[in-house]
Amino acid sequence: MNRRIDNLRNKMNVLALGVLSFGMVASSGSAWAGSWEALPKKAPVPADNPGTVAQVELGRKLYFDPRLSLDGTVSCNSCHNVMSGGDDNRATSAGIRGQNGGRSAPTVWNSAFLSVQFWDGRANTLEDQAKGPITNPIEMGMPSHDAAIARLREIPGYITEFEKAYGGKGAEAVTIDHVAKAIAAYERTLITPNTPYDRYVRGEKKALSDQQVRGMKLVETTGCLSCHMGANFSGPPLPIGTGFFQKFPVHPDSVIEKKYKFTKDLGRAEVTKKESDENFYRVPTWRNVSLTAPYFHNGAVATLDEAVRVMAKLQLNKELTDAEVADIVAFLNGLSGGFPEQKMPRLPESPNRSLVVSTKN
Amino acid sequence: MNRRIDNLRNKMNVLALGVLSFGMVASSGSAWAGSWEALPKKAPVPADNPGTVAQVELGRKLYFDPRLSLDGTVSCNSCHNVMSGGDDNRATSAGIRGQNGGRSAPTVWNSAFLSVQFWDGRANTLEDQAKGPITNPIEMGMPSHDAAIARLREIPGYITEFEKAYGGKGAEAVTIDHVAKAIAAYERTLITPNTPYDRYVRGEKKALSDQQVRGMKLVETTGCLSCHMGANFSGPPLPIGTGFFQKFPVHPDSVIEKKYKFTKDLGRAEVTKKESDENFYRVPTWRNVSLTAPYFHNGAVATLDEAVRVMAKLQLNKELTDAEVADIVAFLNGLSGGFPEQKMPRLPESPNRSLVVSTKN
Repeated sequence: MNRRIDNLRNKMNVLALGVLSFGMVASSGSAWAGSWEALPKKAPVPADNPGTVAQVELGRKLYFDPRLSLDGTVSCNSCHNVMSGGDDNRATSAGIRGQNGGRSAPTVWNSAFLSVQFWDGRANTLEDQAKGPITNPIEMGMPSHDAAIARLREIPGYITEFEKAYGGKGAEAVTIDHVAKAIAAYERTLITPNTPYDRYVRGEKKALSDQQVRGMKLVETTGCLSCHMGANFSGPPLPIGTGFFQKFPVHPDSVIEKKYKFTKDLGRAEVTKKESDENFYRVPTWRNVSLTAPYFHNGAVATLDEAVRVMAKLQLNKELTDAEVADIVAFLNGLSGGFPEQKMPRLPESPNRSLVVSTKN
Repeated sequence: MNRRIDNLRNKMNVLALGVLSFGMVASSGSAWAGSWEALPKKAPVPADNPGTVAQVELGRKLYFDPRLSLDGTVSCNSCHNVMSGGDDNRATSAGIRGQNGGRSAPTVWNSAFLSVQFWDGRANTLEDQAKGPITNPIEMGMPSHDAAIARLREIPGYITEFEKAYGGKGAEAVTIDHVAKAIAAYERTLITPNTPYDRYVRGEKKALSDQQVRGMKLVETTGCLSCHMGANFSGPPLPIGTGFFQKFPVHPDSVIEKKYKFTKDLGRAEVTKKESDENFYRVPTWRNVSLTAPYFHNGAVATLDEAVRVMAKLQLNKELTDAEVADIVAFLNGLSGGFPEQKMPRLPESPNRSLVVSTKN
């Protein structure tokens, strides 16, 4: 068993932390021999943020509230649009004053099933993640969390809702930790356990087409599931805060690199400053991948066809035929959809004056 | 009767077209002697755009779809947010690439009751209005309506919905006229006939506070209703396409002008190129004014208090006391709210590639 794990380790460039959970998925000659899993109908919930109705409803409001950004132009939903695939279909996102971020926005859908957040895994939890963009100068651009909280405290309706959701009295109930908890609680409801794939795995054999079933077998035999395993197709189940990071590209290709400049970004090493983390990324989910073009951390690849081709080449050193690509893309399309209906929030009022700054470019 | 209308005409600087409907509101010594009207429970609907369920639901999707903008960052809702007061609480709105528009976004709520659209009345109907921002280079920035339609035709779900809403077969059903009609049909549902004021006028005497009732009398005796009359507080009922335009300021004040630079914008004259239209504007609604700070066509005034003070001075040459301002603001607050619950749309998909351009600033 140990040797098998070690082999797998080399094959997959897994960080030490992620290794121990691997035995269960590595039991045959193939790099992956797990069983196909449907997504659980509920996301894991941390003990200190149970996600009561009041918490989720508060989070829903905050998620859509552009007043969390300095100039009132950017809400969480601007870059992670829950009316569509949970991102913005841009290579990199547009923040305040028309600035562009450095990486492509990952989908918010099913992010509750990831054990670390951001492309480089720099946040352990959805709660930690939610705090980042608010003060990122090229995203929402608030000068500080205190400034964001001071603004929310000017909105009487929010004070009441924070009290209801997290206790505390008056403005004191509004804290950055409660903001982050509420947004995370809402995000844990953004899951899609009813895609065609999930219905297929649960026994509805017509939920996937013949082509999609061919693609399903292909991602297994090609080796894609070495990394994109599990119900969320983003790696093995790991404790929260334990990232499943992989090097990209494993098999560098100068023609592809020239075209897409993947290695310009150092990935996880930008956070850890360790050479061994260079060009490592958290394995992204395949769920809703068909709705989140353009692709990769820098959004350099326009279509899912090309993304599949590039991944096979750079990660597995394989050239896929057009038919294989088409089958895999068809399968990936079966991992989209089944979105739960979303209620549109009404944002609490700040009457008779504006709380946002009218920035000019 | 004729002389009375003529007097009123001089007093109000009304454009010729608007004059004939005035008799009914000008029957006493005061400039306004109408009766307080609640908002109708349905907006007027043009014969050629009845607003069927399919039309409204299509319009709801288009209204929230950022793919109507070149780079996928701006939807109708970005600047006219129906989760709040129907605008963006900015002096001027942020378009694509962080560009700023020239005028403050008016609220979409109850725009169905206006007889012309835009600050300068350059669109006669909601349908005409909806087409403007799509190709405005500093708003949604599409190179042409044809380009917008070509993009929508790439989205299979939209083709089906246009067919259902407006007939026609396949991609041919998707036209700019149908886009405009659908958005307008949705906007005609965005009305607020159940504010505290409306409930008060319909007989619920506790719907307004004593202070609000004082403010209600004050706006009458001060003369504000000379222009802000009618159920929508935006002028007399006029045929669609007939604007109720007023000069602003009527009584120029150099100190105020220095501070807020109101006259830099020529208003309606920017469209008509007529000197007689300089600094004329369509009278905006008071409904939800408490939620749409900052104020005026250029968004130069931060608070509703100051806006009330400035209006009394510049339009009626009156200095209000602090108590009078407070009462009027309280009344105006009674013209907000009562928003109908909004259903969040799911946007039709364009799988496996992005249709938007990832602009950089």
